[in-house]
Amino acid sequence: MSSLKFDVIKKDGKARLGTLMTAHGPVDTPAFMPVGTAASVKAMTPEAVRETGAQIILGNTYHLMLRPGAERVERFGGLHEFMNWPGPILTDSGGFQVMSLAELRKLEEDGVTFRSHVDGSYHKLTPERAVQIQHMLDADITMALDECTPFPAEEADARRSMELSMRWAERCRQAFRERPGYGLFGIVQGGVYPDLRESSAKTLTGIGFDGYAIGGLAVGEGRELMFKTLDVTIPHLPSERPRYLMGVGKPDDLVGAVRRGVDMFDCVLPTRSGRTDQAFTRRGTLNMRNARHREDPRPVDPNCQCYCCRNYARGYLHHLIMAKEILAATLLTWHNLHYYQELMAGMRDAIAEGGLDAFTAVFAAEQASGDIEPV
Amino acid sequence: MSSLKFDVIKKDGKARLGTLMTAHGPVDTPAFMPVGTAASVKAMTPEAVRETGAQIILGNTYHLMLRPGAERVERFGGLHEFMNWPGPILTDSGGFQVMSLAELRKLEEDGVTFRSHVDGSYHKLTPERAVQIQHMLDADITMALDECTPFPAEEADARRSMELSMRWAERCRQAFRERPGYGLFGIVQGGVYPDLRESSAKTLTGIGFDGYAIGGLAVGEGRELMFKTLDVTIPHLPSERPRYLMGVGKPDDLVGAVRRGVDMFDCVLPTRSGRTDQAFTRRGTLNMRNARHREDPRPVDPNCQCYCCRNYARGYLHHLIMAKEILAATLLTWHNLHYYQELMAGMRDAIAEGGLDAFTAVFAAEQASGDIEPV
Repeated sequence: MSSLKFDVIKKDGKARLGTLMTAHGPVDTPAFMPVGTAASVKAMTPEAVRETGAQIILGNTYHLMLRPGAERVERFGGLHEFMNWPGPILTDSGGFQVMSLAELRKLEEDGVTFRSHVDGSYHKLTPERAVQIQHMLDADITMALDECTPFPAEEADARRSMELSMRWAERCRQAFRERPGYGLFGIVQGGVYPDLRESSAKTLTGIGFDGYAIGGLAVGEGRELMFKTLDVTIPHLPSERPRYLMGVGKPDDLVGAVRRGVDMFDCVLPTRSGRTDQAFTRRGTLNMRNARHREDPRPVDPNCQCYCCRNYARGYLHHLIMAKEILAATLLTWHNLHYYQELMAGMRDAIAEGGLDAFTAVFAAEQASGDIEPV
Repeated sequence: MSSLKFDVIKKDGKARLGTLMTAHGPVDTPAFMPVGTAASVKAMTPEAVRETGAQIILGNTYHLMLRPGAERVERFGGLHEFMNWPGPILTDSGGFQVMSLAELRKLEEDGVTFRSHVDGSYHKLTPERAVQIQHMLDADITMALDECTPFPAEEADARRSMELSMRWAERCRQAFRERPGYGLFGIVQGGVYPDLRESSAKTLTGIGFDGYAIGGLAVGEGRELMFKTLDVTIPHLPSERPRYLMGVGKPDDLVGAVRRGVDMFDCVLPTRSGRTDQAFTRRGTLNMRNARHREDPRPVDPNCQCYCCRNYARGYLHHLIMAKEILAATLLTWHNLHYYQELMAGMRDAIAEGGLDAFTAVFAAEQASGDIEPV
């Protein structure tokens, strides 16, 4: 019996409509989690993030342990209090970003030693320390420390890496302190090797977690291999627990993964794109820096009800970008997060009605149709 | 009879409590106008600006004529529509920033020719063109084109400069198109020379404007000379019309100028300071980058009711600054604008009760008292 309640309300094919009950409130699944790396969803107030429809956000253990430090966040009453986000928070374990951002990494059985990219100081992340840090941050969902297997990797290397992650997962489970509404997720590794993925999923299920993440994907293997890996992994995960595809993805990745039974996602794409002039729409992505938007009085998406589209013309957004105004990042991030949340809400509604196939067909046709014609 | 209604409701010494009725709503005076240079009050949504208590904002003709261009703003329905600010807007004439920002300026009787700092293109600003641009922007309050006399200036130079501004003021008056709720303000020049200021004030009064600005101050002359110039200028302005001290200033400048009969102000200080880690409080200015705030759980000002102080600790703001998060600029700008609006509201309440002397004494004592003691 998990201390993190999860109800699957309805199924449509392999897709599931569910609700996850955390200590800081409910999360309707399939859910997309905006990324709040350094205790801020970049360019947004927490109220604006909530207004887009987001119920849960993600914090990065690697960034927070280095600055401001987990102990400091704990003294401020935890991450919710520190950053003024009263809703649920999932934190990653730090493992992925140690590998991608830190210097002088040394990976051993016990854990990983590295130098901070912020100030050059030395740090060690062990499974126990990763869990402890996430407790200090007061994460509703704690992620087990893993090694994100690089792509490509030989099968023997992928196996060694996955097996280390499994031993670390067991240590995380031991270190995790159970409390109602709080949970620990294990992370399936194994590269693109079906046998390894199956073995990893079964090992984690044997240990027993509150949820199961699929890691090591969206690292260059391409969509086909990503979806294939989901297909060979998900059948080996317990159906009554949430499944989380880490670091994914583009809108069509989300649709394809939900259809394969994934319940949770996170990705920097909507926020990062908002700071680099990109706007997601049902009809594809727009580069708002493009001069063709200069005189355009229409919103980014005439069918969108977000704060940006209700109040601002494409021509104004283009102007803000050219004038290097901070508001450009805020408005485009707002729109993009809203787009992602609407996409998830649309899938939830479709699953509720058993209409995910029809939803998917309309989604694909709209994405392929290109931007609405110029004025 | 002006088409811009202004009522002086109460006087306390030389200070006035008033209401200005513009085409886009009322402005309670004394009023502080946040600066929205390039069709955005930097780092803020318009709703956030309004939430600080601001009723009117300022737009910069120089910036807007170069980018996105006055004609384009007009095609978008004017500046209110373009930037989603439904309230009153005052635009400056562009003259001041042509002198401070543009290259290759050439000042002639007819107007000023210059090269854009944005793209190097050539432009000419005449009194008629400055008024026309502000009409295209749909400014509730249009400012006459003037030459901002440099400081220091010999009396003969200050006179020549002021007299040119007076001839331009007359041409602006001729070019201005009267509409209910819209008005044109003349600008008193004359450097720090009392006779020139008197002459300029009388010339403008003779022409007849909807309001009178005092220009060419806060350019290096110091507070004493600025206040002295107000003292010799304001008696020559019509008491039934609003008075606007341009580009001022620090909190104690505002208090001193209100006491001398000024009704309106604008300054980049609260917004620019918000982007450079400074927070205004009743007890002086705090540099939030300072490490002493790192562990501080208190808000910037425990007595402040702004969005920033209601929700965020000093330690969090310090963290956002160190992590270079955009939200730092938004939160500190929000707080600073709220501080300025509260200061103006405090002065309006004090004037209403005939208590501006007592208000001033408390204000000065608090400013001198230094930051609240560390935790």
